[in-house]
Amino acid sequence: MTSRRVSPDTELSLIKRIQRWTSRSSQPEPRLILPIGDDAAAIRGRKDSLFLVSTDALVEGIHFNLRYFSPEDLGWKAVAVNLSDIAAMGGTPLYFTTSIAVPRTRNSGWIRKVYQGMLQLASKFQVHLIGGDTCASPQGVFLDVTILGEVKPWEMLTRRGARPGDILFVTGDLGGSAAGLELLKRHSRLARRYPEFIHRHLRPAPRSHIGRFLASRRLASSLIDISDGLSTDLHHLCEQSRVGAVTDADKIPMAKTSGKLCALLSRTALDYALNGGEDYELLFTVPPKLKSKIPKGFQGIAIHEIGWITDEAGQCYLLDHGRRRKLLARGFDHFAAPHR
Amino acid sequence: MTSRRVSPDTELSLIKRIQRWTSRSSQPEPRLILPIGDDAAAIRGRKDSLFLVSTDALVEGIHFNLRYFSPEDLGWKAVAVNLSDIAAMGGTPLYFTTSIAVPRTRNSGWIRKVYQGMLQLASKFQVHLIGGDTCASPQGVFLDVTILGEVKPWEMLTRRGARPGDILFVTGDLGGSAAGLELLKRHSRLARRYPEFIHRHLRPAPRSHIGRFLASRRLASSLIDISDGLSTDLHHLCEQSRVGAVTDADKIPMAKTSGKLCALLSRTALDYALNGGEDYELLFTVPPKLKSKIPKGFQGIAIHEIGWITDEAGQCYLLDHGRRRKLLARGFDHFAAPHR
Repeated sequence: MTSRRVSPDTELSLIKRIQRWTSRSSQPEPRLILPIGDDAAAIRGRKDSLFLVSTDALVEGIHFNLRYFSPEDLGWKAVAVNLSDIAAMGGTPLYFTTSIAVPRTRNSGWIRKVYQGMLQLASKFQVHLIGGDTCASPQGVFLDVTILGEVKPWEMLTRRGARPGDILFVTGDLGGSAAGLELLKRHSRLARRYPEFIHRHLRPAPRSHIGRFLASRRLASSLIDISDGLSTDLHHLCEQSRVGAVTDADKIPMAKTSGKLCALLSRTALDYALNGGEDYELLFTVPPKLKSKIPKGFQGIAIHEIGWITDEAGQCYLLDHGRRRKLLARGFDHFAAPHR
Repeated sequence: MTSRRVSPDTELSLIKRIQRWTSRSSQPEPRLILPIGDDAAAIRGRKDSLFLVSTDALVEGIHFNLRYFSPEDLGWKAVAVNLSDIAAMGGTPLYFTTSIAVPRTRNSGWIRKVYQGMLQLASKFQVHLIGGDTCASPQGVFLDVTILGEVKPWEMLTRRGARPGDILFVTGDLGGSAAGLELLKRHSRLARRYPEFIHRHLRPAPRSHIGRFLASRRLASSLIDISDGLSTDLHHLCEQSRVGAVTDADKIPMAKTSGKLCALLSRTALDYALNGGEDYELLFTVPPKLKSKIPKGFQGIAIHEIGWITDEAGQCYLLDHGRRRKLLARGFDHFAAPHR
């Protein structure tokens, strides 16, 4: 853990403050032998478990705009997208580290709020901050989080296990985050009338409990989280499993929009659901004989059957008004555009 | 592992290329159950070892300037500073993840060179890239590395174990990196005449073998790496151990400068050695009864006795021309200034 000076803080005082914020928000953790504050954190493994490691960064002007992201939202989202990666492995999240680069014009109060957002979500999942790096940035905020989780080897769910004939399921509903982003970008005054869409974009809820449910019961053959959009992430899953898929447009759960809201938005609800991205729902496959074990919902989140797996490697199709058309991976293309 | 589009690459092709570069440069690793390419990597722990985790980021305009850092240098240095953190725990480095944000004006060939620099150093230490995030940046390059290592609990060396009477040692020599930086910044045409200083700054060598030697023989009571400068890192060690220290200016090993070079540089060799930073040498304490077991050098790197530990918590002194004066923590102040 190191820090290069940001505004009037000295390194030690900033690291000490982070330690204080961290210790307030988390329970003592017997496996965390050495917490934040030394050259590295030290953690004890469990002999029958694997460690899971994943990294995701948020860059100002690419993934977020501080005109509508509060520092707390930013911290929350950086942790949420990483929790979602562990959920997508069927794992339990344990620890995270963070690197934040911040222009000198932002004071330590602002940085503190980013940490508060991170720790607010982390504490809901009993995830501990174990290290980080805070430094100045010449322009723009950069926030990187690396998360560690664990899973028993026989419970781990990857993108590789889907087989022809498996049934395709998705949690929650899709497209809300992208619709929320468009409201924030193009209709900022009206955005507050649609708080659920705004919330979906700023403070996504990782589906950790559903990931653990599927993993511990060994119900799924493959699992991925939807970060780039259903169309793109379904391609990822199919490519890694060397299978194809058909999904039925009528069955894809879409965020509920009113006529008024549809008039504001530039794309159809189906387009948002297929290509919007950043929903952080789970997409998974289930062998036919286990299909009946998948509930209609879990802890308040709906689970929908949306299609099936085929043997045409890499080929994804959409059934739309009775026609079968190619589903192109259009997710990340849309949202690679700067968020300004 | 996710990626948002940078220039003409599609996400999949960029991730696949990174997988290819990675697999070429590393040996098969039986503990790496799931490598790069899924939502997270999965690794098996060892039952008698702790995992070590550390993160350090490099930000363009703060930690480096691309006028004199090649992309390979940048990748090398990002891994080197993280390897140094694991060395400073007495640990063995194992795996790393990386997040890189790059302006769209840089093509995938440039990104590849950053990865090559990372993998070039990583392969020397048999350290494996297990995940990462590549995305666009509106301005400036941001490169964050998180490293995982391991250590047996009884071998782990922290900043906390120094006791009054312990002897203070440092590896290698100090100040060369900061002198090299000044040459690069202020005398770029002459810089090539002093390749060893330039190399110290651009491609620091982590002292992993010395860290392991001290840890496996249980010779050191505390250990830290010198990233911010001897004056500042000695304070870090003393504060965490609740002790003080006296160091003798005559004994501090300084990078060898000629009269010609001294005339170019704005500060004295002692000032660079005390406050320059980024040397990535190891600073450690040894109980008096073990002092004789510390060799004069290890694998070609000198080891110097430079002082002793006192019971005055947090107080550090410098013996200079027979006088004892307060040693202030001046390391990071100098180098918080942008590298432009």
